[in-house]
Amino acid sequence: MYLRLMSHTAAQAAIGDSEFDRDTAIAPRAGEAGVYDAELSAGWTIISAVNGGYLLALVGRALAAALPHPDPFTVSAHYLTSSVPGPAVIRTQLVRSGRTLSTGQASLFQYDENGAEVERIRVLASYGDLASLPDSVHTTARPPAIPAYEDCLGTEAGPAPIPGSSEIVDRLRLRLDPATAGWAVGAPSGKGEMRAWFELADGRDADPLSLLLAVDALPPTSFDLGLMGWTPTVELTTHIRHRPAPGPLRVAITTRNLAGGFLEEDAEVWDSADRLVAQSRQLARAPRT
Amino acid sequence: MYLRLMSHTAAQAAIGDSEFDRDTAIAPRAGEAGVYDAELSAGWTIISAVNGGYLLALVGRALAAALPHPDPFTVSAHYLTSSVPGPAVIRTQLVRSGRTLSTGQASLFQYDENGAEVERIRVLASYGDLASLPDSVHTTARPPAIPAYEDCLGTEAGPAPIPGSSEIVDRLRLRLDPATAGWAVGAPSGKGEMRAWFELADGRDADPLSLLLAVDALPPTSFDLGLMGWTPTVELTTHIRHRPAPGPLRVAITTRNLAGGFLEEDAEVWDSADRLVAQSRQLARAPRT
Repeated sequence: MYLRLMSHTAAQAAIGDSEFDRDTAIAPRAGEAGVYDAELSAGWTIISAVNGGYLLALVGRALAAALPHPDPFTVSAHYLTSSVPGPAVIRTQLVRSGRTLSTGQASLFQYDENGAEVERIRVLASYGDLASLPDSVHTTARPPAIPAYEDCLGTEAGPAPIPGSSEIVDRLRLRLDPATAGWAVGAPSGKGEMRAWFELADGRDADPLSLLLAVDALPPTSFDLGLMGWTPTVELTTHIRHRPAPGPLRVAITTRNLAGGFLEEDAEVWDSADRLVAQSRQLARAPRT
Repeated sequence: MYLRLMSHTAAQAAIGDSEFDRDTAIAPRAGEAGVYDAELSAGWTIISAVNGGYLLALVGRALAAALPHPDPFTVSAHYLTSSVPGPAVIRTQLVRSGRTLSTGQASLFQYDENGAEVERIRVLASYGDLASLPDSVHTTARPPAIPAYEDCLGTEAGPAPIPGSSEIVDRLRLRLDPATAGWAVGAPSGKGEMRAWFELADGRDADPLSLLLAVDALPPTSFDLGLMGWTPTVELTTHIRHRPAPGPLRVAITTRNLAGGFLEEDAEVWDSADRLVAQSRQLARAPRT
């Protein structure tokens, strides 16, 4: 076990031994190749609903186990029905095995009152080996203009603005850019932006699977537009471009096309080495006004 | 048939009766629900490869036929093997039928020398009814800064810069923003941008299915970075947000994260009513330098 001396009093969790790893653990089902049992933890809910990024990370772990290549490169997820804490099963299928990329499909099911499987999310994903990529960087995007960590707002900075059960808040150590936190005190900026420093609360460093969580773990940008309702994800596509360096991540999300009852949200995740390690776009239903 | 008097000498094609409609036609296979035969036309190749947007539109038409809802809302496509002109079959599956959205899956196959099916592209998509959406628009994105149509460069403006068979050039009426056309004369801007007015050559107006073509029908942004090689799409997710108004479209594409041998490309499609009718992001392999 890897321990790092920090100013925190608690020992820092490690990749492989942390809340995130335990709550995204999968168990291969004996006799059924490509099938994994899992338990959706109640610890990753937002307003009582299981967080979409947590679900994506869980399915991502199953695909990493099932496919010939270890790392998600591009993951496309369609969210079908609402998940609830409790048992789940992930059924995977190899679609194509290539030299540098493999493609797979996965569905996460839960059980209805009769024990029948109900599909929650279906995913198509192409996996590769991030370690094998050349180290060339021609990224023209710049890291987000977010204030220093100590100048951002943690959840301990004020009363919990989101009603209901939002256990995920205790799993994460988010520090919001004050410029994108006005909604919490009734003063949204109206720009449709959300920026935060992002860490796991137990200190576990990021890895490609936790990046799948990070792209969907901030408050929705619709809050910053003054729309405080439920904003369910219809579809989410995530690109993982590099293994993240240790240390806090910076997540910057924007929406530019709120129309017709839907909105898109673009997320960028930057690591401590100033690398753009993940990009995502989701289509979500806008809150009913 | 709808004819519109234009300064062009030829009659303008109509939605339902055009090159695009004929080349994306599907035939339901008797006795096999959800299965459609098709013919990949040689008329939509770029450097001898079948264009990815054309393939997406063809699969999109099959899903429109198979699903309870008529219009693509969010379409996620993983490109597996290279398609060639010739026979194809599209196999669709209903994943979930909802009140306002349905989700489906589709695979396009071609045939190897033994007649066995080889999968070319697999798609997950959620469909709805664009006509049923409220007409609310809170889009903060602005139309692209592209010069007037007559100040942009058509393919007739100079020698064909792309070697090999690029039949798709004759299917489209593209007029490139000169600021993003320098690569054609050995002077790429280095910004990784591509902008153009986009119409179908026979004058057919745009519709949701042709928007699936439009997001992947311009030269790659890597050309504007001075990288003139093959840039195959790994994955492409497209959001269709509104039925396009008649008249030319404006397509603006950008890349900001060329690294590790891959690049992302974000495309926006604006219609003549200044509405952001489609958005897409693809992950592509960067040209080998």
